[in-house]
Amino acid sequence: MADSKMYAEIREQPEILERILNEGWGEVLSASRALREDGLRSVMIAARGTSDNAALYAKYLFEVLLGVPTALASPSAFTLYESRMNLEEVLVMGISQSGESQDVLETVRRSRELGATTLTVTNNEGSSMADAAQHPLFLRAAKEESLPAPKTYTAELLVLYMLVSALKGESQGDEVRRLPGLSRAVLEAEWEGTERYRYAEYMVMTSRGYNLATAEEAALKLMETTYVVAQAFSEADLRHGPIAMIGRDFPVLGIAPFGKMQPGMRSLVEDLRDRGAELLLVSDDEDMLKKASATFPVPSSLPEELSPILYAIPIQLLAETLARLKGLNPDTPRGLSKVTETW
Amino acid sequence: MADSKMYAEIREQPEILERILNEGWGEVLSASRALREDGLRSVMIAARGTSDNAALYAKYLFEVLLGVPTALASPSAFTLYESRMNLEEVLVMGISQSGESQDVLETVRRSRELGATTLTVTNNEGSSMADAAQHPLFLRAAKEESLPAPKTYTAELLVLYMLVSALKGESQGDEVRRLPGLSRAVLEAEWEGTERYRYAEYMVMTSRGYNLATAEEAALKLMETTYVVAQAFSEADLRHGPIAMIGRDFPVLGIAPFGKMQPGMRSLVEDLRDRGAELLLVSDDEDMLKKASATFPVPSSLPEELSPILYAIPIQLLAETLARLKGLNPDTPRGLSKVTETW
Repeated sequence: MADSKMYAEIREQPEILERILNEGWGEVLSASRALREDGLRSVMIAARGTSDNAALYAKYLFEVLLGVPTALASPSAFTLYESRMNLEEVLVMGISQSGESQDVLETVRRSRELGATTLTVTNNEGSSMADAAQHPLFLRAAKEESLPAPKTYTAELLVLYMLVSALKGESQGDEVRRLPGLSRAVLEAEWEGTERYRYAEYMVMTSRGYNLATAEEAALKLMETTYVVAQAFSEADLRHGPIAMIGRDFPVLGIAPFGKMQPGMRSLVEDLRDRGAELLLVSDDEDMLKKASATFPVPSSLPEELSPILYAIPIQLLAETLARLKGLNPDTPRGLSKVTETW
Repeated sequence: MADSKMYAEIREQPEILERILNEGWGEVLSASRALREDGLRSVMIAARGTSDNAALYAKYLFEVLLGVPTALASPSAFTLYESRMNLEEVLVMGISQSGESQDVLETVRRSRELGATTLTVTNNEGSSMADAAQHPLFLRAAKEESLPAPKTYTAELLVLYMLVSALKGESQGDEVRRLPGLSRAVLEAEWEGTERYRYAEYMVMTSRGYNLATAEEAALKLMETTYVVAQAFSEADLRHGPIAMIGRDFPVLGIAPFGKMQPGMRSLVEDLRDRGAELLLVSDDEDMLKKASATFPVPSSLPEELSPILYAIPIQLLAETLARLKGLNPDTPRGLSKVTETW
């Protein structure tokens, strides 16, 4: 089979990350100066699908690195229920690859009327969402042809990280500049053992903190490209109920980079093995990788708050590989189109 | 098989709702007076498991009925990552049946140190969480013996609804007093067609707005009691990707009460039928019920914002029924205990 567009777009990511780092700081710094002058008491982020997983990553960045409480918006509160929320001193962000997601757009527009400062992250400079906001930021990811959108996801994560860095006053750290090189190294590594999951019909994804977004994105990519019934839980939420369903042979994908969540993941891996689960693992920890039947070793470590940008790549490769193993074309999930209209 | 404790506790709910309405207003009104004096700019709610689904319901209540932006807390931001969030003028709420959920308790304690006003909802007057907060509210649901916690879930929803009503200055509406009677009527109704799902291995739950919490609670109850791989999506999120996995024979549970979300659910039901999905439906709409192979007709209508308290009952009955069809004891999910320790 010829390489999929998704595979080609996965491989474009180092170049796009580099472009964003070279060309993106200007608009990020100018937005952050304005936001710091306005004052920033809380943040609300509206997004759907892949962009909603980027929003989840941003929630941890804003809360942990900036100390600003952050909510994920419920667009229906604005669209269906016509809430008149008091949004003074709230930064409302809309994230959308196309910039045309209707309920996210409406959330941004209504929020601005309700007193919010508005910022959007899109890949489309002429989009309605970029027009609607005071501070439009752009992804510079070029046109995206595969529906699963691998490259705009990591581009969104990087732009959100740069925004939070700039708001913190640490505009151009050394660590973030390692990303293009490290992502090239990740693209040299490979999954081992995925054939075993050819007939998997369901899967649980788990991680914690910053990488809960990676687990959510893994679930979404698998649902879209392989039709596997996949769902993500934080390591803690998994233990509060859903772990009951995990018995012998149940496939679980763990995302366990170096960081404050790694000890909890190590303990979870033991508990899952005791239950007889089958483990797929993405980690930089060799001992942990030995416990899994499918593995992707990440060659190097980054600060935990940057790791989701790197760890997104193995989960994209997993979705693409499993789709091909199942004889499916990952570029054209059944019944989906690039811009989904919901209200 | 003897009736399960879960079944007995499902049937206790009308009496508990009545008790809360008779005895609970005093503490709710006193908390709401204090909160209105402090001013309420935003809300953050920490909870796990079933209580987290009650938190999701509360998010819609606060945002739509009060216009106060509301976030679901990420406990790890406080526990693992030791965030120093600025929480002045933020109401931080902790919800926990036992009042001993460690990371939720820590979130409440840390939030209070960081300037938040704190309120807790628990079933246990002597619990650590009730001690930790300025405004402890109680569920009055008596001791709970079945692990799936049906009665504390609806008790949490009602206490949260009463709190928001009181904050709005509408303390004791007529509609809410219909709940005990209506819940008795719901307990007279029955599921039809559930045998068909004896061998279902996975299921998607969907609804929107206030009843997204009902869909999430349905997924959690099914995972805990039947080990079915069950996950919930808002009708809009389902369309943004996951719908790709829904093909012929895929079981989907829809929760579609009267209200602003019902037209969207009606259209989704048509789309799911076009995909060949198998539908389970809880609704008051007779025409929609005809489209499903398993149905639970809800006998009467309530304002949409109260409907989750009523619609919780059919989803609890579904979990209990399916567990028994599968030969499982719903009271003792494998590997779970009443207080889960996560950090």
